[in-house]
Formats: sequence, structure tokens, C-alpha cells
Amino acid sequence: MKRVIFHDLVTLEQAVEALTKFAAPLGEEEVPLEEAYGRVLAKDVVSPVDVPPFDRSTVDGYAVVAESTYGASELTPVELRVVGRVEAGGWPRGEVGPGEAYEVATGAPLPRGANAVVMVEYTQERGGVVRVFRPVAPGENVMTAGSDISAGEVVLRRCTRLTAREVGVLAAVGMRKVAVVKRPVVAIISTGDELVSPGEPLGPGKLYDVNSYSLAAAVAEAGGVPLLFGVVRDVAEEYRGAIEAALSKADVVLISGGTSAGVADLTYRVLGELGDVLFHGVMVKPGKPTLAAVVGGKVVVGLPGYPSSALMIFHTVVRPFLLKLQCREPEPPAVYKARLAVSVEGAKGRRALYSAVLIARGGGYVAYPLYAESGAISVLARADGYFVVPETVEFMTEGEEVEVHLFERYRPAELYFIGSHDPHLDLVMAKWNVKAVYVGSMGGLMAVKRGEADIAGVHMLDPDTGAYNVPFVEKLGIRGVAVVGLYKREQGLIVQRGNPKGVTSVEDLLRPDVVIVNRPRGTGTRALLDLYLRQAAERLGQPFEELVKRIRGYTHEVKTHTAVAAAVAQGRADVGLGVRYAAEMYNLDFIPVGWEEYDLVARLEVLDKALKLAEEALRELPPGYSRYEYSGRIKHKA
Amino acid sequence: MKRVIFHDLVTLEQAVEALTKFAAPLGEEEVPLEEAYGRVLAKDVVSPVDVPPFDRSTVDGYAVVAESTYGASELTPVELRVVGRVEAGGWPRGEVGPGEAYEVATGAPLPRGANAVVMVEYTQERGGVVRVFRPVAPGENVMTAGSDISAGEVVLRRCTRLTAREVGVLAAVGMRKVAVVKRPVVAIISTGDELVSPGEPLGPGKLYDVNSYSLAAAVAEAGGVPLLFGVVRDVAEEYRGAIEAALSKADVVLISGGTSAGVADLTYRVLGELGDVLFHGVMVKPGKPTLAAVVGGKVVVGLPGYPSSALMIFHTVVRPFLLKLQCREPEPPAVYKARLAVSVEGAKGRRALYSAVLIARGGGYVAYPLYAESGAISVLARADGYFVVPETVEFMTEGEEVEVHLFERYRPAELYFIGSHDPHLDLVMAKWNVKAVYVGSMGGLMAVKRGEADIAGVHMLDPDTGAYNVPFVEKLGIRGVAVVGLYKREQGLIVQRGNPKGVTSVEDLLRPDVVIVNRPRGTGTRALLDLYLRQAAERLGQPFEELVKRIRGYTHEVKTHTAVAAAVAQGRADVGLGVRYAAEMYNLDFIPVGWEEYDLVARLEVLDKALKLAEEALRELPPGYSRYEYSGRIKHKA
Repeated sequence: MKRVIFHDLVTLEQAVEALTKFAAPLGEEEVPLEEAYGRVLAKDVVSPVDVPPFDRSTVDGYAVVAESTYGASELTPVELRVVGRVEAGGWPRGEVGPGEAYEVATGAPLPRGANAVVMVEYTQERGGVVRVFRPVAPGENVMTAGSDISAGEVVLRRCTRLTAREVGVLAAVGMRKVAVVKRPVVAIISTGDELVSPGEPLGPGKLYDVNSYSLAAAVAEAGGVPLLFGVVRDVAEEYRGAIEAALSKADVVLISGGTSAGVADLTYRVLGELGDVLFHGVMVKPGKPTLAAVVGGKVVVGLPGYPSSALMIFHTVVRPFLLKLQCREPEPPAVYKARLAVSVEGAKGRRALYSAVLIARGGGYVAYPLYAESGAISVLARADGYFVVPETVEFMTEGEEVEVHLFERYRPAELYFIGSHDPHLDLVMAKWNVKAVYVGSMGGLMAVKRGEADIAGVHMLDPDTGAYNVPFVEKLGIRGVAVVGLYKREQGLIVQRGNPKGVTSVEDLLRPDVVIVNRPRGTGTRALLDLYLRQAAERLGQPFEELVKRIRGYTHEVKTHTAVAAAVAQGRADVGLGVRYAAEMYNLDFIPVGWEEYDLVARLEVLDKALKLAEEALRELPPGYSRYEYSGRIKHKA
Repeated sequence: MKRVIFHDLVTLEQAVEALTKFAAPLGEEEVPLEEAYGRVLAKDVVSPVDVPPFDRSTVDGYAVVAESTYGASELTPVELRVVGRVEAGGWPRGEVGPGEAYEVATGAPLPRGANAVVMVEYTQERGGVVRVFRPVAPGENVMTAGSDISAGEVVLRRCTRLTAREVGVLAAVGMRKVAVVKRPVVAIISTGDELVSPGEPLGPGKLYDVNSYSLAAAVAEAGGVPLLFGVVRDVAEEYRGAIEAALSKADVVLISGGTSAGVADLTYRVLGELGDVLFHGVMVKPGKPTLAAVVGGKVVVGLPGYPSSALMIFHTVVRPFLLKLQCREPEPPAVYKARLAVSVEGAKGRRALYSAVLIARGGGYVAYPLYAESGAISVLARADGYFVVPETVEFMTEGEEVEVHLFERYRPAELYFIGSHDPHLDLVMAKWNVKAVYVGSMGGLMAVKRGEADIAGVHMLDPDTGAYNVPFVEKLGIRGVAVVGLYKREQGLIVQRGNPKGVTSVEDLLRPDVVIVNRPRGTGTRALLDLYLRQAAERLGQPFEELVKRIRGYTHEVKTHTAVAAAVAQGRADVGLGVRYAAEMYNLDFIPVGWEEYDLVARLEVLDKALKLAEEALRELPPGYSRYEYSGRIKHKA
């Protein structure tokens, strides 16, 4: 084990600095001009020529000594002797003196002695003599040599990234080849015995390898050349061999560690054997286990295994480093100030990075933090950017201002939907410019109440009245909204194909040989199951709380209907309550227990859009959905 | 000639609409995931799997029925029977009931019946029994199946551009190949007998072809595949042949017409013969001669020949069209509100587009329009963006607000330099983050006075006092500035090698066999020449005005020192006044006439930087430059 440069956890800034300091410079290479787009200049470019290289006519006409035309008019034209003609691309012979003219095409060089061009429209030529009907001033209709670029001028500076405009400048000064900074070749290794490459069959207990691909794209976006080494098993020798192979072919190596502690230890040990560990641990959440080493002047970075953490650390540590390696400054991040939609916690001495959806509201913005396990890749895909909770802050409350650093240019959505996930509605909304955040019915109602969402998707049964959705709008005191009736969904017990456990009703969930899978509190489906169980408890004369304690898996909560079906399909549970759509997707049996009303709660400003969305969603209903009396109509206004 | 769809000039919006309407759709293709970065999805992507596909432990520990651990503490641990072990990538056998535990690694699947994981840190295993020292709640340390992405969920929508984040999502749902919109192949033809490809020798009257390369880069930036056809002569048959060849290989054809009217007519005629002309003329300046046709469902656009005009029309017409063809929405342009630095004219019924430099000043921005012949490529390279003067506006005055549409993300410069061009200082500033705008000494002084520039480069001789620069700061009443002495430059008469005309002094410029080249009014060099000529006029006893009328080429004005040298080198003039540096660059003879003082006029806020800049510029002086008493010191403060 060799020395560790930083013994304590480092900050993000220290991490970038360490990588940049210990990396060998990339050197330069020559590329043909047509391949120079997007590359970075390795040297200042001094123009070897004037652009244009000669005085050029900007019109078709006659090159003259301007003074010869003074006093010319329609009535008193000046007559000049035509002493020559030149086209664009030609070169004039002889010169022009007073009383003389030289015919020139647009783009043609001016003959010596001429200092202006009369447009052909103001002339008449006959027999070697041209009559000029308007005077011209010196310099008129002439683009002088070097007026665009002068020979010897620094036209482009070292470290400039070449866009179409700079490529045009290089062409104008005649450069066929350009000296550019080499692109860093970045090897990417994924580790973890549970990983399988996309496209291969997903055996039990396996997951698809995300990091190889998302990091490759991120490397390309940062100007690097990704080199995929695929999935390497976390066996010491195999692992070391892969790292050595990567070092022999690449300038930088990225390893996204498996998720287990064992792999992180392995990475640390192997890198310590091969070279010097620069730092081991970054004061940031997510991403603490990030480590880096330098091996023979080449930087190796060990990234967290979780896809969203790996990308976030790439964005904040590796990308700035790769840009500096290429002599590019990181772009000033596009930052939007926004109000926090809900309170968030700090990370106790570490800097916390929260992914967020940005919602344009009343001239300002609201940031909706996306809570999800750090393993979630979907969170990053949905986020517009991230905000930082500093090391020293324990807690930020709803309404506080945060700065959201955008991942891309911000494009506001036409409509913001927050609420319960419905598989059919999700497919319909795919055709709209909608930003959808799925947080359950209750979260959707609160978001509409606070004005952060335009529409919430809600299916909440009120046990007191047996009515859906409207009672909650009233109880929560939500104003300025309409409840638009959408459809009924068929809920039922999802069981394995052939129903091996012989489940027929909710009461079967009480059997000791049956394991269930449940949905979390706050979802409409959970509320429905609890209603059925309360009725069962009444029939059996038992307290509800006692009854649910007997149900195996009652506290095993999953977030979506399809996750219920997946748990049943994989045998982790025998039964769960969910919509027919999910059961059919997994080819499972379905025992109907009833229909629930799934409605849209829309702010009045977007009522028209909500009615249109309902109309589209109702056009073609899949099995397990049905219209009801309020479908496509206003059910309630507040 | 076939029909023209629009008979009148069209607006920019109509032009984009016409192209989009008549273009055939591009179709789709499948690409491997590692090549999908930057591409555009052709279809909605519905996840075929749950992510994760099973309930996963997020820690190393023991999967349990949470209820079994209730009441556990350091003093009263709960003992559970270990019934199995599973690694990440493995699959558990059997199930877990009350009183049982199943050892799991991070990332491993939970066995059936378990609903939580106790972290290994809070356990102690011995002889098949594990002691648990802390209770866990249901769901603790578990990432449930489908909690990231549910099977059947629309994870990405059609027309989404794939960044690293979306590529990660596609990997997570196991996609090996992705259906993306085909990239449009865009053929690029340059026409004009005066054009030569970069890298080839530049014969007399020739220019380098800029548009092939700048448009190719712009096409690549807009997601297209450029196909260069190089320079085609403007001969009808050759031209038609090139267009047909381009149409056979590409989806879209761009022709950047030569600069002469003849080529524009040729383009119109040939396209009319091959297909339907969509429009001929756009109400915009620059760019009026833009035309478009559709030939067999393929769009052909004729762009203006001037590089900056061609790129501007590409940016405003072709780029939005190419993006729409690929199902991409044009990004909302980044727009900065700015005060106009100087007045500008409208384009009489056309929309005028002005390139501008954006200068960050006092919390806001100042837009400096870049005046230059429309042929100038350097203007675009220097500009940060452009602003629009609407069709109906004749004139916009200094201080009015304009909206600058950025070409790229805006990066403010550390220092704004406006003023006279000096070749040596330009090379020194190349190492600084300086934005330099060269507008002559007088323009620089006015910019510093208005606070738009930090520093002006000035060399203005006051004929009354014979002093340099300081008198102008006083006469113009500029406050809050210091004049920092820089260096003396040697001015002289630049003549051909061997001095064939035998020029020895300024009085030789009066000879009838001598043609001169001059600099414009407002430049220090012009002021110097006029001073010498006034002295000559006095000696000769003639009025100055009469004297200069006799000088051939006196009104022939070029913008830089090197342009003076170029005119002499190419024989367009015999002599011109300029700095020694320019004469040496062109290997010409130089007859010294005197030394002038080139100083920096700096706002006091940046005085330190100005002194540092002077220090660097003075470190190593090329021939023709020399230190003087005020070099690197403050000469005057106001």
C-alpha cells in the first residue's frame, strides 16, 4: 500500500483539484479542418493572410477613382474610358487613373489606383466608354484587404472550443489542419457479480449494468472517448487484470464499484498496490465512497455503484477534471433560484446534493426534491437539476430559497402533474408536454393545494361516506380547483397463474400459509385494502389492529401496482391488491374485488387542458378500466 | 420553371415552416446503446421490467420479518435462527418466517417472507443463530421491486434527446438497441470561381472557401451528418450535375451561392428546373437572397455567399428546420437584455440581425453591435450573439434595450478592451481572458468614457500641443480613468522591397507616379500622416486641402496596419504609412518617419490590471517598439 495524499475526507473542490494536479497533460494532435468541430485549440492561431487578401468589389459595376465621378447625375453623366474587365477569381491587369473605369464583378479584386466601385445599375456602357449617372465616395462598395482579419492577428486563442463560427475563421485563414488538444481516452469498468449487460437475459437476482453506458455517454458529452470494458467480477485477480488492461489503453480509468462494501475495499486495495491513492472519501451525499488514485500519471477514479450517485459524482468531480485536462473551463452552471416545495434534511457534515424537478410558477420557480433510494436512475432522468444543502445546514424548510444547477437547458412543461401513478394515464400523457411526478394521491392533493401542480391524479376512498376524492378536496380545504371525473379502475387480488393458494376473497389473506405484498399508506389502493379488512374485522368481531398483525407481509410495502404483480410473479408473495392492468402485464390471475374512481383534481386555470386530457384518456380504455357517470365531466368545484 | 410557393418575400418563421412542411420524414434506425448518446428517440420506451426486478437489500446484514426484531436492544437482543445466505447476484432458496433470519449481502435479493434487513453492525452470529441488538421497521434497508421503474411504465418519450441520464435509463431497463430518428445527411456545395479550398495555394484574386467548413460544423452541431461536395464552378452544367449528385446522396442540400448576382440567378434557374421553388427571398438583413426548393421530397436551400450571412441564416432558418426534421424542438434561446452601446439603423421593412458583443456592466449588460461588411467571418467569431431590429423600426438609439440571443452560453470576460489595434498587444492579450473590440483610438476613448470598456488602446497625436493621448482624455472630459504609458511604436513609410519608386519622405507621396494607401479618419496613424502633410503644405505654401487632392490613393482607406502592408505587397499601392511590425511581416522595406506613443486609458477600477497588462506587454518588445519615460507608469489621472 502506497501513500494516501489526503488522509481525511475531501471536499468536491479538493477532489477536482487533486485529479487535475496529478494527471499527465494530454498533448496535442493535428486534425483535418472538417473534423475540428467541437475540439479544443492547442495553440493560438495567428492568421498568415489578410482576409480578404485584396480589396474586393462588393457589387457588379465599375472600379474607378472616386474623384472622377464627382458631379455626375442623371442629366450630367460622367464619361469614363473602360480600360479592362475582371471577374471574381480573376486578377486585373494595369491600373485605373482619373477618367478611367475598370469593369468588375462582385467579389473581384479592385485594380491598382481605383478606390471605389460604381454599381452597374447607375451606368451605361457603349463602345468602350461608360457613362456614370451617380457619384461614388472613396471606399464605396469596396471591402478592403485585411478588413475582416489582418495577417499577423491572433484570430483564435489557445483552449478555444471550436464551434461553427471558429471553424469558419480557420477556413478563412486557409488552415487545412488544426492542432487540437487530444481527447482523453476514458476506460470504464463496472464491477459486481449481480450485473448483466443490457440485452442479455436477466437471471434471478441479476440487474442490468447501467453505469457502463451512462458514464460512457457522460464521457462523450465531456469531450472524452469512452472505452467500455464491460462487467468485471469482483475477484481480486480478474479485477486487477482489468484495471491494468484499462491503464494500458486509456488516459483515465473510471471504475464504478459494485454496491457491496467488499468491492469498495477491493478497489482501494488494488489501487493502493498499483499506485498512489489520492483521496478516499468525499464529503458529499450521495457519493461518499468515491476514491481516486494515480498510477503512472494516469488517474483512476472509483465511483459509487448506484447509478444516480455515480452520475452525480461524475458531474461534480470527473467532468470538471476532464474539461480541465482538455484546457476547457467548466461552463458557468445555469442556476435557477427556486422555492423549496417540501422540507429536506442536510447530511450531517457532508454536502447534500438533491435532485429536483423545477416547476415554473408565478414568474418564479418551485424546486421539487425527488426522494428515492440513491439507487434510482429514474430520479436523475426526471430531474431538471440538483441543489445543494451545505455541510453546515441541518434542515431546510419548505419555502426556503435554493439554487438549482441545471443538467441541461431548462424547458418548462406545458402542464405539471403530481399524484398517483396510473399506467394507462401515463401512456396518454406521453403525448403531451407534461412533467409527471408520482407521489401518491395524498402528495398530489397537497401539491395542487400549494399551487405547485396543475393537476393531481387521485383515487382516495373516504371510509366515512364511501365517496371517492371529493371529500378529501373538501377536508383539505383546497380552493380554486375542479375535480374532473376520469374513470373507474378494477381492483382485485393479484395471484399466481392458476391460483395455487386458492385465494377467493380478502379473508383468505388472514390464512397462515398466505404471504401478501402491500402498498404504502397514503395510496388509494392501501386505503381500499384497509377498508375491506376493517369490514372483515367487523364480521369476525376482532379489532382491526389485531387482525392485520396476523397477516404475513402486511407491512411489506411496494410503490406501484406493477411492483405488486412482480412480487407475486417472482413468488416473493402469494397475493396483493392491485389493478387488473398490472395482473395482465405479468400474465397473472386476477380476482376482482371492486371498482374505484380515479379522477383528476385540476386547478381552474388549466381546467380546459384537464378536460382535454380526460377526453383523450377516455377515448380507448384497456381492460380493467370503465367509464362512469362523471367521466370527462366536472364532478365538483371548489 | 415550376411553381413558386411563396411569391413575395417570406418572414423567417414562414421560411422555417415551408421547409418543414415540404420535407419528407427521415424515418428511424436501430443503434446499439453505446452509440445512442445525442440521438433522438423514435418511439416511446415502455419498460419491459421492474427496476430493480426484485426486493433488494441496500446493506450487508440479515433479512428478517421486521416484527421478529421488535423489542431488541443491546441488553435484550433477539435471537433468530439463520436459515440461509445469499450474495449479490445470487437467489435465496426457501423463505423466512417469524424467528428466522437470512444472511444477505448488499444488493442481494430478499427471500420470500422477509420485509426488512438488519445491518450486520447490529448483529452477532454464532452457530447458526444471530443475535439482533436493534429492531428494524418494515421496509428498512430494502429497495423494493419496481420502486425505481415499474414494468409497463413509459420511461422515456418519443422525441427525447438522449443524454447520459436517459442512456442510463435505457440500460436499466435492459435495452441493447434503441430505435432513434435517422440523422439527416446534409450535402454542402460551395460555388464561386474565386473560391479555393483551405490548404491550397491562394492565387491572385482567390479567397478561401469558408462556408463548406462552417456550415459542416453547424450541421453537425444540429445533429446532421455533413457531406462536403467542395467548391463547384458556376457553370450551369457542372452546377446542375453537382446538385443532382448531392440530391442522390443526401436528405437535404445546402448551397452557399457565390457572391455575384449571376450565381444567385443560376441557383434559382437550376432549382426551378429540378423541382418546386418554395420561396425566393427572406425579409431579413443579412440574408435576403436566401431561397429554397423541394426536389423529390428533398429540401434544397440556397444560402447567401458571405460567411457571416450564411451562418446567420443557417442559425435562424436551417437549424430550426433540421431540428424539427429530427423531432427535436429548438432550444429556447438564451436571451440577455442589454442596453445598446451605439445607435443602429433598421433595414427598411426587413428584419435586421446585428451581431453583438455582450459586456457585463453594473449588474446589467451592454450590447456592442459589430459593424463590418457582411462578408466578415471574424465578426461572428467575436460576437456573443445577435439582436433583432424589427421590420417596422427605422432607428434604435444608444441606451435603448435590445434582446441579445446568445450563440453559446455566455462567459463574461475578465477585461473589456476597446480601441486601436496593436499587433503586439493583441498577442499579449491572447493570454488573458480579455474581450477585445477594435474600433480605433477615438471609439475606444468614447467606450471608456461611457463605461463600456475597461481599457482603451489609444495613440492620438494632438496637433496643437504635439502631445499624445492625454489631451484627448481632457478634451472629451473623461473622468475616473488613468492613462497608463505603454510604449512608442515606430511609424514609417512601407514600400515595396528594394523601394522601386525611390520614396524617401512624405513629400514623395505628392508625386504623380506614386499611388498611396491610407488609414481612416479617427485612427492615430491617419492623424499622424495628416500632421506630416500639413507641415509639407506649409513648407510648400499650399493649402492642405489642395495638396491632398493631388495625392493618388489618399481616399483609399484600409482598416489595419497589415492591410496597408498587404496593399503594398500586392502592388495595389506603392506606399502607405504604418508600423514597422507590419512591414516586416510582409517582408517589405520601411522608411522610418517617427515614433508615436501608444498608451492604455484605463478605468480606475481596473488600474491594477492595466498596470499588469502593461508590464507583460513591455517584457519583451519586438523591433519597431520601444520603452519611453512613462512606460508601465501612470502618465495622467482624471
